[in-house]
Amino acid sequence: MTPARPLTLQGKPIGSGAFPLIITPLVGRTSDAIADELAAILPKKPDMLEWRIDFFEAIGDTARVIDAARAIRTAAGGVPVLLTRRNLTEGGQPVPITESAVVAMYTAACEARCVELIDYELSNATEDLARLRRVSAAADVAMVMSYHNFQGTPAGAVLDDKFALAQALGADIAKVAVMPRDPADVLTLLAATYKASQTLSIPLISMSMGGLGSLSRMMGWVYGSAATFAVGKSSSAPGQVAIDELRAVLATVRQAVLGR
Amino acid sequence: MTPARPLTLQGKPIGSGAFPLIITPLVGRTSDAIADELAAILPKKPDMLEWRIDFFEAIGDTARVIDAARAIRTAAGGVPVLLTRRNLTEGGQPVPITESAVVAMYTAACEARCVELIDYELSNATEDLARLRRVSAAADVAMVMSYHNFQGTPAGAVLDDKFALAQALGADIAKVAVMPRDPADVLTLLAATYKASQTLSIPLISMSMGGLGSLSRMMGWVYGSAATFAVGKSSSAPGQVAIDELRAVLATVRQAVLGR
Repeated sequence: MTPARPLTLQGKPIGSGAFPLIITPLVGRTSDAIADELAAILPKKPDMLEWRIDFFEAIGDTARVIDAARAIRTAAGGVPVLLTRRNLTEGGQPVPITESAVVAMYTAACEARCVELIDYELSNATEDLARLRRVSAAADVAMVMSYHNFQGTPAGAVLDDKFALAQALGADIAKVAVMPRDPADVLTLLAATYKASQTLSIPLISMSMGGLGSLSRMMGWVYGSAATFAVGKSSSAPGQVAIDELRAVLATVRQAVLGR
Repeated sequence: MTPARPLTLQGKPIGSGAFPLIITPLVGRTSDAIADELAAILPKKPDMLEWRIDFFEAIGDTARVIDAARAIRTAAGGVPVLLTRRNLTEGGQPVPITESAVVAMYTAACEARCVELIDYELSNATEDLARLRRVSAAADVAMVMSYHNFQGTPAGAVLDDKFALAQALGADIAKVAVMPRDPADVLTLLAATYKASQTLSIPLISMSMGGLGSLSRMMGWVYGSAATFAVGKSSSAPGQVAIDELRAVLATVRQAVLGR
């Protein structure tokens, strides 16, 4: 079996070497709440933190965003931080600022080099994607381009196109997350991920969401997904499993699949 | 999600209620070796035992077969016993007796009512399948009809036909086990199982084998496979996971998928 392409920062693999990476979300509304989350999560040793800034009450105040990012980074002690404003139509929270203010916030965070990665949806305006790609590249910040569908799982060919579009637009990592309506939809997501892993050159993150989709959080790595999201303290999407339980399942699955 | 059809005996579900059932093979060459296996396995509480009689040195001596089956049954204390001679071309051991002697052995075991289920491959002669169906039905012994391919995973349509053929020939349970050559083959097996679970009326058991296939031993139940094979003391096919580890993974997967 060909192992999935690992996530890297400046050419170095992220994490401790175990595969897939485990990413844990931070969804606090305030800096204090985020500090509490970090205290609960960091002892569980996630490989990456995703700061879901659409939950953060001060998303409109760039200085507070950068202060909070720096506090997260200091607490994280080397665990990379992915900055994500998930938009409302793709499962995020409502935010009180315009899209151009969101782009400015991402730009300021990149320029302050206070996060290691950013995530921006493929459904955003092409010029905003291009701008954040330029800004992040100049700051050596990795860029995830993502597609989320909470209503259902499109046909495999649609998923193929989403993975390919992320690479075509210069993403460092392509992410696809979709909701299954039946068990077969989970297979569609896994098959599309496997196909993309054979045809594209960038690393991938994919998952099927909800209860059924939790299967993909445990075995998606066999199909080319380099990372899986787990609950540290609070989940950020349906179907996420607690980090300790997920890690135990992954250890058994890895041993069974790889013999090690 | 529609739960997979459970395995039953005389209309009653087998096992403790947890789904899928866990079946543990017995592969001893002698009655003493089998007794040792039972001592190791039974405390782990499998839902069913599969006696792989192709491993048994006295397969050609019907009286010793029946004695051994009775000893297994007594030790098993109510855990149902599935009697299986796996043929050589489908992953079994060489046996010193002719196919008509194998059919006579199965017939004697049914008539002695010393096992609860038998397994006979779909690749066998139609008249032998029909005969064992009649004999087992008359003795209230359930019959699995099975297809194994250790070389690869045929196209989904071929697997559809195997499941359907088992039902058409009057099987109580259809079983399909195939070897994946790449991760996509595991999806083919799961998709075919799901399709059969939606179109047929009998319970199904399916698995993809080997390291990659071990995924299906953990999640096949979501796609309609009512049972999974786990190692009690010694494995009988590649990719089987130890019963304790499999049970732990299944508990996490069940909780994630079903919320209970």
